[in-house]
Amino acid sequence: MEVKAGPLLSTINYPADLKRYTEAELEQICHELRQYIIDVVSVNGGHFGASLGVVELTVALHYALNTPYDKLVWDVGHQAYGHKILTGRREVFHTNRIYKGISGFPKISESEYDTFGVGHSSTSISAALGMAVASQLKGEKDRQHVAVIGDGAMTAGMAFEGLNHAGIENSNVLVVLNDNCMSIDPNVGALKEYLTSITTSRSYNRFRDDISTVLSKLSELGPNAHKFVKKIEKSIKGTLLKNSNLFEALNFRYFGPVDGHDVKRLAAIIKDLKEIPGPKLLHCVTVKGKGFALAEKDQTKWHAPGLFDKITGEIKKPVSAKAQPPKYQDVFGHTMVELAEANEKVVGITPAMPSGSSLNIMMKAMPTRAFDVGIAEQHAVTFSAGLAAQGLVPFCNIYSSFMQRAYDQVIHDVAIQKLNVVFCLDRAGLAGADGPTHHGAYDLAFMRCIPNMIVGAPMNEEELRNMMYTAQLPDMGPFSIRYPRGNGVLADWKRPFKALEPGKGRMICAGDEVAILTIGHVGNFAVTACRELNTEGIYPAHYDLRFVKPLDERLLHEVFTTYKKVITVEDGCLQGGMGTAVLEFMADHNYHAEVIRLGIPDRIIEHGEQPELWAECGYDTESIITTVRGMAKIRATKTMAG
Amino acid sequence: MEVKAGPLLSTINYPADLKRYTEAELEQICHELRQYIIDVVSVNGGHFGASLGVVELTVALHYALNTPYDKLVWDVGHQAYGHKILTGRREVFHTNRIYKGISGFPKISESEYDTFGVGHSSTSISAALGMAVASQLKGEKDRQHVAVIGDGAMTAGMAFEGLNHAGIENSNVLVVLNDNCMSIDPNVGALKEYLTSITTSRSYNRFRDDISTVLSKLSELGPNAHKFVKKIEKSIKGTLLKNSNLFEALNFRYFGPVDGHDVKRLAAIIKDLKEIPGPKLLHCVTVKGKGFALAEKDQTKWHAPGLFDKITGEIKKPVSAKAQPPKYQDVFGHTMVELAEANEKVVGITPAMPSGSSLNIMMKAMPTRAFDVGIAEQHAVTFSAGLAAQGLVPFCNIYSSFMQRAYDQVIHDVAIQKLNVVFCLDRAGLAGADGPTHHGAYDLAFMRCIPNMIVGAPMNEEELRNMMYTAQLPDMGPFSIRYPRGNGVLADWKRPFKALEPGKGRMICAGDEVAILTIGHVGNFAVTACRELNTEGIYPAHYDLRFVKPLDERLLHEVFTTYKKVITVEDGCLQGGMGTAVLEFMADHNYHAEVIRLGIPDRIIEHGEQPELWAECGYDTESIITTVRGMAKIRATKTMAG
Repeated sequence: MEVKAGPLLSTINYPADLKRYTEAELEQICHELRQYIIDVVSVNGGHFGASLGVVELTVALHYALNTPYDKLVWDVGHQAYGHKILTGRREVFHTNRIYKGISGFPKISESEYDTFGVGHSSTSISAALGMAVASQLKGEKDRQHVAVIGDGAMTAGMAFEGLNHAGIENSNVLVVLNDNCMSIDPNVGALKEYLTSITTSRSYNRFRDDISTVLSKLSELGPNAHKFVKKIEKSIKGTLLKNSNLFEALNFRYFGPVDGHDVKRLAAIIKDLKEIPGPKLLHCVTVKGKGFALAEKDQTKWHAPGLFDKITGEIKKPVSAKAQPPKYQDVFGHTMVELAEANEKVVGITPAMPSGSSLNIMMKAMPTRAFDVGIAEQHAVTFSAGLAAQGLVPFCNIYSSFMQRAYDQVIHDVAIQKLNVVFCLDRAGLAGADGPTHHGAYDLAFMRCIPNMIVGAPMNEEELRNMMYTAQLPDMGPFSIRYPRGNGVLADWKRPFKALEPGKGRMICAGDEVAILTIGHVGNFAVTACRELNTEGIYPAHYDLRFVKPLDERLLHEVFTTYKKVITVEDGCLQGGMGTAVLEFMADHNYHAEVIRLGIPDRIIEHGEQPELWAECGYDTESIITTVRGMAKIRATKTMAG
Repeated sequence: MEVKAGPLLSTINYPADLKRYTEAELEQICHELRQYIIDVVSVNGGHFGASLGVVELTVALHYALNTPYDKLVWDVGHQAYGHKILTGRREVFHTNRIYKGISGFPKISESEYDTFGVGHSSTSISAALGMAVASQLKGEKDRQHVAVIGDGAMTAGMAFEGLNHAGIENSNVLVVLNDNCMSIDPNVGALKEYLTSITTSRSYNRFRDDISTVLSKLSELGPNAHKFVKKIEKSIKGTLLKNSNLFEALNFRYFGPVDGHDVKRLAAIIKDLKEIPGPKLLHCVTVKGKGFALAEKDQTKWHAPGLFDKITGEIKKPVSAKAQPPKYQDVFGHTMVELAEANEKVVGITPAMPSGSSLNIMMKAMPTRAFDVGIAEQHAVTFSAGLAAQGLVPFCNIYSSFMQRAYDQVIHDVAIQKLNVVFCLDRAGLAGADGPTHHGAYDLAFMRCIPNMIVGAPMNEEELRNMMYTAQLPDMGPFSIRYPRGNGVLADWKRPFKALEPGKGRMICAGDEVAILTIGHVGNFAVTACRELNTEGIYPAHYDLRFVKPLDERLLHEVFTTYKKVITVEDGCLQGGMGTAVLEFMADHNYHAEVIRLGIPDRIIEHGEQPELWAECGYDTESIITTVRGMAKIRATKTMAG
């Protein structure tokens, strides 16, 4: 379905075109831009609320700044749709997040207006500061460097590190704080409360007003009073205004709060701020989902709603939805409640992903035992370690790619101390439309090298439940469980718990000539592949390792004494992953089979639907079939030659 | 040499003994404790300044709290010597940091008073909060949870994440901010300036005083004035006191600043604070090295000075110092200056390790082009990426184990964008006396699985220089170079730069039967081993891979077509490291040699001198010799049997 841009927007291909309009016309442009986003996203899907919330900010920034000479960094980047549309990508915007289409996030290789690739939260201040310092070294004094960052992203430690450094570099950095009280879920933490207290004027503004009212009245009391009032005013200006604000405490000049939907005022302010050197912060208050009533009302649901009817707001369910097995996420959420009901030591932790991880099921059922700690993966892990040090069993749910943020804490605070923290690595493997920043490609490799760590991956919902059950049994120590985004394979998944033995795999089917070893959900690809191959008279064996660490040595001895041709399949990187662990076992026991490893190759994998990417990487069902056939063929050829 | 504790200290084995003394006697105990630390560290080595700085705080905390029931977490932990001495370890304190002796850091397995293992900075708030929330869930309302954290550690984002969460949990957490303006090097950043401005009374205190003076004078002006003054006071109390302080902005009750060397006052305050529920912060001002004049004067030098004469303060140099080749660190520092002089794009970044990494050489020579960004590894990497996005070539020097803190940023901001950031991973491999938290065991495994990343490790100083030179040549992309703590092997190291080809190794010597493949400094162990073996008539080949990624495939084809027995040697974990990369190559090319991998085994390695640990792990010179002999013997046996 073709979507038509409004009359003004359709004339704007680049920011230079935008600048030809008057300030008075900006509102109309914002209106058309917002409508265009609604029109396209409703039929294509993608992130929604965040981009609607920054329409005015986007227009004002490109209007007031001299992009791409001036450097504009969008934090996280799922709010950058307006930016993409205004910077040469309106006509291809309908390919957003589609395989081979444009990325859902800013990306250097896509446009010179995308100054820095994003996806994970809270990198923008550090990146913009780096650019600003580079400009300083190169003598480009007029160049502006702007980081647009949400109040959610501001809770991540990395943002604080950036502020702390920027506060002492006299570089030209403007941080635009997009304060909408939301991450994907509502924000949490003391900072959020602080910002709210500023913006609702309950303290900062009212205090300023109170003081000035009182002082002016005091002044009227006579010349003596006037003298004191001047003194107190000076004291207040020098100190209160400097240190009363968290950002000013860090040497930033603070401006705001301002209405983030007043495009004319925003453009004027940003123009003014260009003249002020050094680090500065503009606090904009916006509404996530602005301009689409339902999205304003339920901001979590409309963060990325999928396809919807833009008139009625009805969200379109996939037609086959009814017959689908549950998402692994929901199995996790419901199982948490079951485990916690049976074991009072079990608690749940998520860094700002209650709905994404489905920990919200537990947060609702037992609010005192499930914690959303904000966008703070490092803290989430060490907080969990603290809980475990006192005998609780925390299930710390972190997306695989976000776990990269807490790698040191996993080693330093959990593994070295052998604490019983259970890591649930959601979105493991290729994540789909979010693309390279969100693929959980590396976790098997980076978790497997950590001593004391159990590394498991369930093949289906029942296995996930049993692995979670096993992980909270006494004295398990550090335990990690990875599973992909999306649906499992069992309709009837809620079966009684069974304890597994860590490091014990299972044979799915016996066979001859070739053995397939799998870990996790991709085991189902192998099941389908075997079924298909059986019809051709090829009978590969199939083993589900269940655990990459410890390895099931008994099982592997059986495999390598029985089969000389082995295929390993994993939804993870080929460098250092499960297949590699198998090679290490072989070397340590002097086995010499022919091994073909299937998994994510050593390059950056772009975005697309998961099945498209599995096929591209060569480990979907079809690839497994082809590989087994190829191995069998080699034997046939050799046999014939012999 | 036996060290004798003073008369009071020698009666104190545990905090219960301490509590028998009166408050008036605490000063004498502090005096004796300080002296005992000086006496032992001067003859045994170890961290020095940090523990001297918190003597009073340590005594006050154990006097006022009910440890170990109350939970005391020391951030980083190299200030915890006094704590160890007061909690059952006075008599073994001389084994501090020695192989098989007590750890230089708090450690759960060592004492019930060590509530949480530390080593890396800024974990204490998260850990203490976890414990506090656990107590809350268990209904232990009277339990105290204290995190003692330096102002340097407070700059790491993780600390901020902990504060942000603690501010909304109504848990019993006391953060003691040990403000001495120092990390190992002087602290940097806006937070440090802010804390200084608080403590020097230039703003916060003076303002409070000013206001109250002015207000009291105003009150005297008459009943009307009095009314207004009350109003203004209320406003100030409600708002200024709440929000004027960075910590109060995050919902912490702020107390201080107080003199951190007034033990009696500290003990009284801590007792009082026990009665106040919820999150609170006590700001103590201390002097690092307190009580040892030289250490107070040059705090960086006396952070961990080695052995010294406690009377004259003369630091004892190892007798062989003159003949030693330079430290890799100094080669790095001097080479940075050379490269930066020749290439104006080159800049240097360190997260708070200027003297440890020797980047201070460049910071002194070209201060505008070398940056200490504070304890902020995440920011350091993305800041570097920002610099690189604007065409500079940042050399970002981070200790291998600290790089675990910035793993996501390496992938997300550098590798995916293919930016030319050069990572210099100092302290790679087993780090020595600092122990498990500081061993750089995993970097080969966790860097190798990242696409686009060049992973190199020089065998000596000249190779380090050439690798650094190569890394800053045009279009190199992400480039990592790892090297160990300590001395290289070449006296004559400052040779003209030569460009290397990434992914190209070299043959050190040809041989027969067995080939040794090494990466990095351990190549020198193999050289010595070969020399020794040659005298026995055994002639192994030796190849230095130089790069683990890309692998030198030509070289490896040569190796595997020539040798059927291969030994790999690396100063890194066996799971996923260099030896494993070689196994992957073999599998991909269907080679079937016998391979023995030497490196760090899959367990936590404790502290000790590097040679002790290399031997324990089985990859020192002697181990290589034994392994080669063993392999040769097998053949001999087989040949005979055949």
